[in-house]
Order: sequence, then structure tokens, then C-alpha cells
Amino acid sequence: MDSMTLIALVSIVMAGLTTGFGTMGPALAEGRAVGAAMTSLAQQPDASATITRTLFVGLAMIESTAIYCFVVSMILLFANPFWNTAIAQAAGQ
Amino acid sequence: MDSMTLIALVSIVMAGLTTGFGTMGPALAEGRAVGAAMTSLAQQPDASATITRTLFVGLAMIESTAIYCFVVSMILLFANPFWNTAIAQAAGQ
Amino acid sequence: MDSMTLIALVSIVMAGLTTGFGTMGPALAEGRAVGAAMTSLAQQPDASATITRTLFVGLAMIESTAIYCFVVSMILLFANPFWNTAIAQAAGQ
Amino acid sequence: MDSMTLIALVSIVMAGLTTGFGTMGPALAEGRAVGAAMTSLAQQPDASATITRTLFVGLAMIESTAIYCFVVSMILLFANPFWNTAIAQAAGQ
Amino acid sequence: MDSMTLIALVSIVMAGLTTGFGTMGPALAEGRAVGAAMTSLAQQPDASATITRTLFVGLAMIESTAIYCFVVSMILLFANPFWNTAIAQAAGQ
Amino acid sequence: MDSMTLIALVSIVMAGLTTGFGTMGPALAEGRAVGAAMTSLAQQPDASATITRTLFVGLAMIESTAIYCFVVSMILLFANPFWNTAIAQAAGQ
Amino acid sequence: MDSMTLIALVSIVMAGLTTGFGTMGPALAEGRAVGAAMTSLAQQPDASATITRTLFVGLAMIESTAIYCFVVSMILLFANPFWNTAIAQAAGQ
Amino acid sequence: MDSMTLIALVSIVMAGLTTGFGTMGPALAEGRAVGAAMTSLAQQPDASATITRTLFVGLAMIESTAIYCFVVSMILLFANPFWNTAIAQAAGQ
Amino acid sequence: MDSMTLIALVSIVMAGLTTGFGTMGPALAEGRAVGAAMTSLAQQPDASATITRTLFVGLAMIESTAIYCFVVSMILLFANPFWNTAIAQAAGQ
Amino acid sequence: MDSMTLIALVSIVMAGLTTGFGTMGPALAEGRAVGAAMTSLAQQPDASATITRTLFVGLAMIESTAIYCFVVSMILLFANPFWNTAIAQAAGQ
Amino acid sequence: MDSMTLIALVSIVMAGLTTGFGTMGPALAEGRAVGAAMTSLAQQPDASATITRTLFVGLAMIESTAIYCFVVSMILLFANPFWNTAIAQAAGQ
Amino acid sequence: MDSMTLIALVSIVMAGLTTGFGTMGPALAEGRAVGAAMTSLAQQPDASATITRTLFVGLAMIESTAIYCFVVSMILLFANPFWNTAIAQAAGQ
Amino acid sequence: MDSMTLIALVSIVMAGLTTGFGTMGPALAEGRAVGAAMTSLAQQPDASATITRTLFVGLAMIESTAIYCFVVSMILLFANPFWNTAIAQAAGQ
Amino acid sequence: MDSMTLIALVSIVMAGLTTGFGTMGPALAEGRAVGAAMTSLAQQPDASATITRTLFVGLAMIESTAIYCFVVSMILLFANPFWNTAIAQAAGQ
Repeated sequence: MDSMTLIALVSIVMAGLTTGFGTMGPALAEGRAVGAAMTSLAQQPDASATITRTLFVGLAMIESTAIYCFVVSMILLFANPFWNTAIAQAAGQ
Repeated sequence: MDSMTLIALVSIVMAGLTTGFGTMGPALAEGRAVGAAMTSLAQQPDASATITRTLFVGLAMIESTAIYCFVVSMILLFANPFWNTAIAQAAGQ
Repeated sequence: MDSMTLIALVSIVMAGLTTGFGTMGPALAEGRAVGAAMTSLAQQPDASATITRTLFVGLAMIESTAIYCFVVSMILLFANPFWNTAIAQAAGQ
Repeated sequence: MDSMTLIALVSIVMAGLTTGFGTMGPALAEGRAVGAAMTSLAQQPDASATITRTLFVGLAMIESTAIYCFVVSMILLFANPFWNTAIAQAAGQ
Repeated sequence: MDSMTLIALVSIVMAGLTTGFGTMGPALAEGRAVGAAMTSLAQQPDASATITRTLFVGLAMIESTAIYCFVVSMILLFANPFWNTAIAQAAGQ
Repeated sequence: MDSMTLIALVSIVMAGLTTGFGTMGPALAEGRAVGAAMTSLAQQPDASATITRTLFVGLAMIESTAIYCFVVSMILLFANPFWNTAIAQAAGQ
Repeated sequence: MDSMTLIALVSIVMAGLTTGFGTMGPALAEGRAVGAAMTSLAQQPDASATITRTLFVGLAMIESTAIYCFVVSMILLFANPFWNTAIAQAAGQ
Repeated sequence: MDSMTLIALVSIVMAGLTTGFGTMGPALAEGRAVGAAMTSLAQQPDASATITRTLFVGLAMIESTAIYCFVVSMILLFANPFWNTAIAQAAGQ
Repeated sequence: MDSMTLIALVSIVMAGLTTGFGTMGPALAEGRAVGAAMTSLAQQPDASATITRTLFVGLAMIESTAIYCFVVSMILLFANPFWNTAIAQAAGQ
Repeated sequence: MDSMTLIALVSIVMAGLTTGFGTMGPALAEGRAVGAAMTSLAQQPDASATITRTLFVGLAMIESTAIYCFVVSMILLFANPFWNTAIAQAAGQ
Repeated sequence: MDSMTLIALVSIVMAGLTTGFGTMGPALAEGRAVGAAMTSLAQQPDASATITRTLFVGLAMIESTAIYCFVVSMILLFANPFWNTAIAQAAGQ
Repeated sequence: MDSMTLIALVSIVMAGLTTGFGTMGPALAEGRAVGAAMTSLAQQPDASATITRTLFVGLAMIESTAIYCFVVSMILLFANPFWNTAIAQAAGQ
Repeated sequence: MDSMTLIALVSIVMAGLTTGFGTMGPALAEGRAVGAAMTSLAQQPDASATITRTLFVGLAMIESTAIYCFVVSMILLFANPFWNTAIAQAAGQ
Repeated sequence: MDSMTLIALVSIVMAGLTTGFGTMGPALAEGRAVGAAMTSLAQQPDASATITRTLFVGLAMIESTAIYCFVVSMILLFANPFWNTAIAQAAGQ
């Protein structure tokens, strides 16, 4: 097993794990936030403007953590600095 | 075990794990959101337009995290950069 | 253990795991949604049209995540790109 | 250990695991749905037609995920594509 | 360790695990459903016919998942296709 | 380690595990059902006939899953088909 | 390590595990049932005859699962069929 | 490592585990039962005779599962049939 | 590693584990019982005699399971039958 | 496996894990905070200014912990001091 | 690795584990008891004498399980019978 | 694998783990505190000054534990005493 | 690896684990106790003297278990009897 | 791997783990305490002096357990007695 293969293997594994598990937390949190939003809307329909605005800001904040995970996965798959170094090394040999 | 086989194995494993586990969070979150939506509808039927709209926005946000996982799985199966490099290397040999 | 056997083994394992565990989340979420639907119906029978419609949309969204898992399992069993490459390689030898 | 034995072993393991664990989620979800149905019936006996209909649709949706698992187990035991390839290979030798 | 022994070992293990763990979910779900049935009966004795009927349908659905597990165990013990192939191979040698 | 010893070892392990863990779910479920029965009796003593009958039907259903486990354990200990084959093979040698 | 020692070791381990873990579920279930019984008695002292009778039937059902575990442990320690076969084999040598 | 040492090691391990973990369930169950008893006494002091009697019967049932564990531990330490056979074998050599 | 050292090592490990983990359950159960006792005293100060007596009986029952664990630890450290046999063997050599 | 490859592998793994798991806590916490905010808005719409301000301060604090994780991941990928030393060493050889 | 070193290592490990984990249960139980005491005091300040006395008896009982763990740790560190035997053996050599 | 590489590997792993997992607790705790703050503000808007001040003090205390983790990570990456010693040793050779 | 190094390694590991995990229980318990104290103060400000006194006694009891852990860590780091024996042995050589 | 490297590795690992996991408990406990404080302030603003004082004493107690962990980490990194002994030994060679 040469170095490039190893780096490729580990990058594939971490790309999957980071997205697969890292989106679990945000998904559950968004479910909670959306659920609370609808309960609040049912309780106080007059405040729907404020509640909806707060919900969207909150969902954006939570989604940001899911996006961190997706970004790290994409970096690992398509802009992996260690892989690039390994390619460069292999080309230079 | 040559490099290509290893990359294929790891890609299969991560494609399954990422989708298999990564959809667990969104599914539970959607169940929670849908449940809260119906409880809210029963409590305040007059606000059904607002509640339904909020629910659909929320479900879209949550589904997006499930889709991140599915996308990573599909990339690993059908557009895997490391596999393509390995194929290219094997063709160049 | 040649490459084809290994790819076959790993594909079988992941096909089982992805469906076996990946349907756990959607099942629980649907149970929650259906339970909330019936509680809501009992509380507000007049809104049964809205509640039932919302339930069906929600169940479809949740079922979609279960279907992602089932699709990945079927791809791994019957349309596995790595297996096809291995078959092609073996035929070309 | 030849390839056929290995494929047989892994198929047995995954057939058991997929059904054994994959039916846990649906079972719990159905228990929840049935429980909620009866609580609703006790609360609003007049809506029993709607509640019962919703329950049966919901149970069918949930049972579908259990059936995905059972189908994958049966495919692995009786229509396993990798096993068939291995049999064909062994016959062709 | 010849192939037959291995298949026998793995079949024994999975027969036990599939039944031992796979009946945990249905058992808990039935406990929940039965508990909810009795709470409902105490709350609304007049609806006992509807509640009891719903309970029996629900228990049958839940029990079905336990029976999937038991069936897979019995198939593994007494109608195992891989074991039969192995026996046939041993007889043909 | 000859084949017979291995089959004996694995059968002992699975007989213990299947009963030891498989009865945990039914026990907890029966505890829940019995607890709910008594709470219901205290709330509505007049419905004691219906509640008790429902309880016994429910307990029988739940106990059935525990009995599946016990049956599998007993089959593994006293009517193990793989062990019988091994004995027959040893006798035929 | 000869076969007899191995069978003895595994039997000891499973005898302990089966009783040690298998009684956890029944114990917790009995605690729940007894607690519910006393809460019910405090709520409706007039129904004490029915409640107590139901409690005893329930405890007997729950205890039965603990006894399955204890029986399997005792079989493994004192009436182990595999051990008896091993002893017979050793005597016959 | 001769057979006697191995049997001694495993017996020590299982004696500790069976008691150490097996008493966890009964302890928690007794804590629950005692807590419910006192809550009931505070709610209905007039029924103290019935409650106390039920508590003692229940504690006896729960304690019985702890005693099963302790008995298995003591059997493993002081009346271990496999150890006795090993001693007898060693003496007979 | 001679037999005596091994028995000593395993005895130390199990003595620690049995007490260290085995007292967790009783401690939590006693905390629950004491907490319920004080809640009951605050609710019904007139029944303090009965409550206190029930508490002490209950604590004694729960403590007994902790003492089983401590006894097994002490037996393993200071009256270990396997260690004594090993010492006797070593002396007899 | 030379030192550089090892450092690259471990850096990839930790970059994924730190972001993938480290954002789970903040996501759940933000979901809770946003949910509480909307419940509060529904309960007291007049205090929406104070509640919204508090929410934003709180989200910033919580997001900071997610950012610590993302920063550590980025440092490991793009400004890894150990990697730089290894590069320098390799260049100096 | 001679026997003395091994016994020393294992004694250090178990001394730490027994205290480190064994005090978790008592700590949580005391937290529960103290919390319930203060809730009771706030509810019924007149019964403070009885509540406080019950609390102290309860804390003493719970603390006793923590002390069992600490005692076992101290025995393992400073009065370890197996270590003493090993020292004696080493001195006698 | 020379000493420097090993120290580098372990430092990278622990830097990631310490921040990745260590910030989970503080994040959840801050989410709880912020949620409670907003519930309190909705309940008693007049006390907003006191509540906000208490919240900020509390968040600072909780954040401090997250910062301990981040500090340890930074020390491990950029001011690692063991790494410095290793560098010094390598330079001195 | 000589004996001294091994004892040093294990002592470092256990010193960290004992404090790192052993303080988790007391911290959570103190959080519970302090929370209950403040809830009680808000409910019954007149009993603040009794509540505060009970809180401090309780915190002292809980803190004692954290201190047991810290003491064991300090003993392992700075007054380790096994280390001292090893030092003495090394000096005596 | 010489002794010094091993001690360095283990010290790095434990320094990270002790702080990373050990601060989880205190953080959650502080979150609980702060949350309860604000709920209490909202309920009884007049008792804010007593509540705030109790909160600060409680936070100090809880923070102390986090500081124990941080102190042990710092000792392991910068005042490690085993490392100092190893340095001294290396210098003396």
C-alpha cells in the first residue's frame, strides 16, 4: 500500500463520516426548531411575523453547522492538500 | 490487494454508511416536525395556511441535510475522484 | 481472496446494513407522525381533511429517506459500478 | 476458505442482522401508533372511522420499512447475485 | 476449519441473535400497545369493542415483525440454502 | 479444535445469549402492561373484567416472544441440526 | 487447550452472563409493577383485592422470564449435553 | 496455562461480573418500589397495612432475582462442577 | 506468567470491578428512595413514623445488594478458594 | 509508511472527526435555544426585542464553540505545524 | 514483565477505576437526595427537623457505597494481599 | 517510526479530540441556559436586567470550560513541551 | 519496556482517567442540588436559612466523592507505593 | 520506542482526555444551575439577592471539579514527575 492509496482511503472514509454523522445534529435541531415554531404559531397566530423571522435566522445558524461538515467533506474529496502534495511528489519522482 | 480494490471497498462501505446512518437524523427530525404540525393544526385550525407553509420550509431545510448525505454517497459511487485517478493510473501503466 | 470476492462480500454487508439500520429512523419517525395525527384527529375531528393531507405529505417526505437507503442497497446489489468494473477486468484478462 | 464459503457466511450474517435489527424500529413505531390510536379512540369515540382509517394507512407505511428489511434478507438468502455469479464461476471451472 | 463447519457456526450464531434481539422491539411495542389499551378502557369503557378490535389488529401487525425474525432463524437452522449446497457438494465429492 | 467442539461452544454461547438477552424485552413489556393494568383498575374498578381479559391476552402475546427465544435456546441445546450432522459424521468416520 | 476445558470455560461464562444480565429486565419490570400496584392501592383502596390478584399474576409472568434464564444457567452448569458428550468421549478413549 | 488455571480464572471473572452487574437491576427496581411505597403512604396513610404488605411481597420477588445472581456466583466460587472435575482429573493423573 | 500471578491479577481486577460498578445501582436506588421519602414527609408529615420505618426497611434491602458485591470482592481478595488451592499446590511442589 | 504519510493520514482523520462530531453539540444547543425563543415569543410577544437580543447573544456564544472545532480542523488541514516541520525536514534531507 | 510488575500495574489500574467510576453513582444519588430535601423543605418548612434527619441518614447510607469503593482502592494500593505475597516470595528467593 | 513522528501524531489526535468532544458539553449547557433565559424573560419581563446579567455571568463560566479545552488543544499544537524536547534532542544529535 | 516505565505509564493514565471521569458524577450532582436549591428559594424565600444550610452540607458530601478521586490521582502521581518500590529496587540494583 | 517517548505520548493523551472529557460534566451542571437560577429569578424577583449568592457559591463548587481536571492536565504537561525522573535518568546516563 503506497502513500497515495492510503491518503485516498482515509479521505473517502472521513468524507463519508463527516457528512453522514455531522448532519445528524443539525437535522435534529432543525426538527426541534420547526416543531417549536409551529407550536408557537398555533398558540399566538398574531405574532407569526416575528416567529417566522426568528425561525429563519435560527435555521440559518443551525444549517451553518451542517454546512461546515459538508465543506470539510468536499475539501477532503476535491481540494485535499495532502493528496495534492502526494500527487506532486508522485509527479516529481 | 491492489490499490483499486481497496478504494472500491472503502467507497462501497462509506456509500452505505453515509446514507444508512445519515438519514436517521433527518427522518427523526421530520417526524417531529410533522407531528408538531398536526398538533398545531388541531389546536388552531384557522392558522393552517401559516403552519403548513412553515412546515414545508422546515421540511425542505431538514431534507437538505439528508440530501447532503445522499449526494456524498452518489459521489463516492459514481464520481469518486480517487477512483478516477486510480483508473487513470491503471490505464497509463 | 481475490478482488471480486472482496467486493462481493463488502457489497453484501453494506446492502444489509444500509437497509437494516437505515429504515430504523424513518420507521420511528412515521410512528411518531401517525401517533400525532390520531391524537390531533381525536382533539379536533373537524380539521380531519387538513390533518390527513399534512400527514400524507409528511409521511412521503419521511419515507423518502427510507427509500434513499433502499435504493443504495439495491444499487450495491444489482448495479454496483465497482463490481461491474471488476467483472469487466476479469473478462478482459 | 474459498470464495463461495465466504460469500455464504457473509450472506447468512447479513440476512440475520438485517431482519433481526431492522424490524426493531418498525415494531416500536407500530406500538406507538397503535397506542396513540387507542388513546384517541377513548378520547373521541365518534371519530373512530377516521382514526381507524388513518391508523391502517400509517401501519402500512411503517410496515413497508420492515418489509424492505425482510426483502433484503430474502434476496440475500435466495436470490443473491454474488452467490449466483460464484456458482456460475464454479460450474464453469 | 472446513466450509461446512463454518457455515454451521455462523448459522447457529445468527439464528440465536436474530431471535434473541429481534424480539426485543416487538415485545416492547406490544407492552406499550397493551398498556395504552387498558388505559383507554379505563377511560372510556363504552368504547371497549372498538378499542379491543384495534388492539388485536395492532398486535397482529407488531407480532408479524417478531415472526419475520423467528422465520429467518428457522430458515437458518432447518432450511439453510447455503448449508444444503455445502451438503450437496460434500456428497458429490 | 475439531468441528464438533466448535459447534458445541457456539451453541452454548448462543443458547445463553438468546435466553439471557431475549427475555429482557418481554420482561420489561410485561412490567409495563401489568403496571398499566393496575393503574386502570384503580381508575375504573367497574371495568375490571374487560381490563383483566385484555391484560391476559396481551401478556400471552408478549410472553410468546420470550418463548420464541427459549425455544431457540432449547433447540440449540437439545435438537441442534448441525450438531446432529456432526455426530453422524463422526460416527460414520 | 483440549475440548473439555474449552466447553467448561464457555459454560461457566454463559452461566454467569445469562443469569447476571438476564435477571436485569425482570427485576426492573417487577419494580415497575410493584410500584404501580402501590400507587393504585393508594388511589383506590377499595379495589385492593383485584389489584393484588392482578399483581401476583403479573409478577408470576415476569418472574417466569427470570426463571428461563436461571434454568438455562443451571442446565449449562449441571446438565450440559455437550459436556456430557465430551465426558463420554473422554471415557471412551 | 493449564486447564485448572483457566477454569479458575474464568470462574473468578464470572463470579464477580454476575454479582457486580446482576445486582444493579434488582437494586434499581427496589429503589423504585420503595419510593412508590412511600409516595403511596403519604397519599393514603389509611391503607398503610395493604401497601406495606404488598411492598414486602414485591421486594421479596425482586430480591429473588438478585439472589439468583449471588447463588450463581457462590456456585462458581465454591461448588463449581467443572473445577471439581478438573481437581478429580488432576488427582487421578 | 505462572498460574499464581494470573489468579492474583484476575482477582484484583474483579475485586475492583465488582465493588466499583456493583455499588452504582444500589447508590442510585437509595438516592431515589431517600428522595421519595423526603417528598412524602413534606406532603404528609403526620405519617412520618410509617414512612421512616418503610424507608429503613427499604434501604436495608437495597444495601443488601451492595453488600453482596462487597462480600464477593472481599472473598476474592482475602478468601479466594482458587488462590488458596494455588498456594497449596505451590507449597506442595 | 514514512512519517509524512502518517501525519497526513492522522490530520485528515482528525479534521473530519473534529468538525463532524464537534458541531453536533452546538447544533443541538442552537435548536434548543431557537425553540425556546419561539415559545417565549408566542407567550409574551411584547418582550420580543429583549428575547431576540438575548437569543442572538446566546447563538453567538454557542456558535463560537462550533467555530473552535472548525478552526482546529482548518489548522490541521492548512496550517499544521507538524506537517510543516515534516516538509521542512524532507526538503532539508 | 515479571509478576511483581504485573500485579503493581493491575493494582494501579483498578485502584483508579474503582474510585473513579464507583463514586459516580453515589454522587448522583446524593445530588438527587439533596435536591429532594430542599424541594421538601420549601414545600413544608415546618417538617424541617424530620426531613433533615432523614436526609442525613440517607446520605450516610449512600456515602457508605462510595466508601466501599474508596476502601477497595486503598486496600489495592496499600494493603494488597497479592502484592504482599509477591514481595514475600521475592524476599524469599 | 521515530519518536518525533509519534509525538506529532498523538498531538494531532488529541488536539482534535479535545476540542471536538470537549466543546460538546459547554455548547449543550449554553443552549440550556439561553433557553431558560428566554423562558424567564417571557414569564417576567420586568426582571430582564437581573436575568440578563445572570445569564452573562453564567455563560462566561460555562464558556470557560470550553476555553480550557481549546487552550489545551492550542498548547498541544503550538507549545507542546514534549515536542520541544524532541526537537531539542534532534538538534543536539 | 522496563518495569519502571510501565508503572509510570499506567500511573499517568489512571491519574488522568480517575480525575477526568470521576468528577463528572459529582459535577452533575452539584448542578442538580444547586438548581433545586434555587428553585426552592424562589418558592419559599422565608426558609432560605434552612435551605442554604442543607445545600452546603449536601455539597460538602457530594464534593467529598470528587475529592476521593482527586486524592487517588494525586497518590498515583506523587505518592505511588508501587513506584517507590520500583525506585527502591532500581537503587538497590 | 524508548521510555521517554512513551511517557511523552501517554502524557499528551491523558492531558487531552482529562480536560476534554472532564469538563463535560461541569459544563452541563453549570448550564443546569444557571438555567434554574433564571427560572427562579423570573418566579420570585424579590429573592434575587439570595438566589444570585447561592448561584455563585454553587458555580464555584462545580467549577472546582473542572479545575481539578485542568490542574491534572497541566501537571501532566508541565510538572510530570515521571517525565522529570526520565529526564534525570537520561541526563545521568
